[in-house]
Amino acid sequence: MTNQRLVVRCFMMSVDGFAAGVDQRLEQPFGDHTEGFTDWMFATRSGNLMLGLDGGEENADDPFVAHSFDDIGAAILGRNMFATSRGPWVDDGWTGWWGPNPPYHAPTFVVTHHPRDPLVMEGGTTFHFATAGIEDTLERAFAAADGKDVRLMGGAATIGQYLAAGLVDDLHIVVVPMLIGRGERLFPESTPPPPYVCVEHIATSAVVHLRFERER
Amino acid sequence: MTNQRLVVRCFMMSVDGFAAGVDQRLEQPFGDHTEGFTDWMFATRSGNLMLGLDGGEENADDPFVAHSFDDIGAAILGRNMFATSRGPWVDDGWTGWWGPNPPYHAPTFVVTHHPRDPLVMEGGTTFHFATAGIEDTLERAFAAADGKDVRLMGGAATIGQYLAAGLVDDLHIVVVPMLIGRGERLFPESTPPPPYVCVEHIATSAVVHLRFERER
Repeated sequence: MTNQRLVVRCFMMSVDGFAAGVDQRLEQPFGDHTEGFTDWMFATRSGNLMLGLDGGEENADDPFVAHSFDDIGAAILGRNMFATSRGPWVDDGWTGWWGPNPPYHAPTFVVTHHPRDPLVMEGGTTFHFATAGIEDTLERAFAAADGKDVRLMGGAATIGQYLAAGLVDDLHIVVVPMLIGRGERLFPESTPPPPYVCVEHIATSAVVHLRFERER
Repeated sequence: MTNQRLVVRCFMMSVDGFAAGVDQRLEQPFGDHTEGFTDWMFATRSGNLMLGLDGGEENADDPFVAHSFDDIGAAILGRNMFATSRGPWVDDGWTGWWGPNPPYHAPTFVVTHHPRDPLVMEGGTTFHFATAGIEDTLERAFAAADGKDVRLMGGAATIGQYLAAGLVDDLHIVVVPMLIGRGERLFPESTPPPPYVCVEHIATSAVVHLRFERER
């Protein structure tokens, strides 16, 4: 058996439970009524560094961002987090939200129904388009991670699928104290609830950090 | 114009957004998968006192409970919070969850579609069964409160209606760090989001307190 873990870190949710609003689009990546949603992240030094920017502070939220890629050997994200397009891939030149040098610096698996050749980016990130379902994708990611953990980036629907399957080992949620109203719920209705216990909850001046672990 | 306010205090919600689970019933008042949901309250001295019990500590959560009825002259609650029965009232002897001396100690309006005579309890609580809708009920409660504020007790559906109508002045939510999975959502989908801003968020060892005020 592997000691590798599937972890979620710094995943953002509004108080009313949304990881994104309606109508995610180029000029409003998180969709409607999400003004200020990412402010806490851009207030940190590490959040800026990760995007190649200067600025931010080493505040109480900074360590969470700074360590969010510690011991991570591969990443997984859903297709709707990778692109605003839907359906079969078209040659639109889109290579993700993150520019030529994405913050993953590792093999990164995009869960999709639609095959596409791998996309080699700068800085060690290669996007692999994984079409055989969440479990197969996780196996591939564990293999690619070379003994390290795999970080599940999002979006909400993809995390929801892995949670429902009991495959997430550690879930760190950042609750942003605002209301979004409608959009992508991190926790759709589920009976029984996903088998996770909250092992830590702390507030900073900007947000609330909650950390869940899978029940044993 | 009145200076009276409609306030929500100590209203509990799980991290996945539920104020109660499925199948609320006598032996499990908050429904399925809510074990431990009220532990934080019973850990406080004031929570015990309010129910005529002994025990609990003056911990960091205690002041929130202790002050939850400050300056309150009347209360409003939904019928489903008052009773597990539904539909027209029957003579089943039910007088609420709280015994002969409920913790309201004031005129308390039960929002219902079904008329019923007022129910005079010990300690100053009289339950009035209000059938003319949430706005009319609020007017009656303000009148009965004699210049003081009105506390909106719940449940989720009733608070949701008052929130959607923009009638809540101050909303204090206690986020219990657990997952319930399915049940009564405090925040159903809404476009735009309810017009409230979070003015305070703090964590205690047991829960997270969030306080919202209506945008001006």
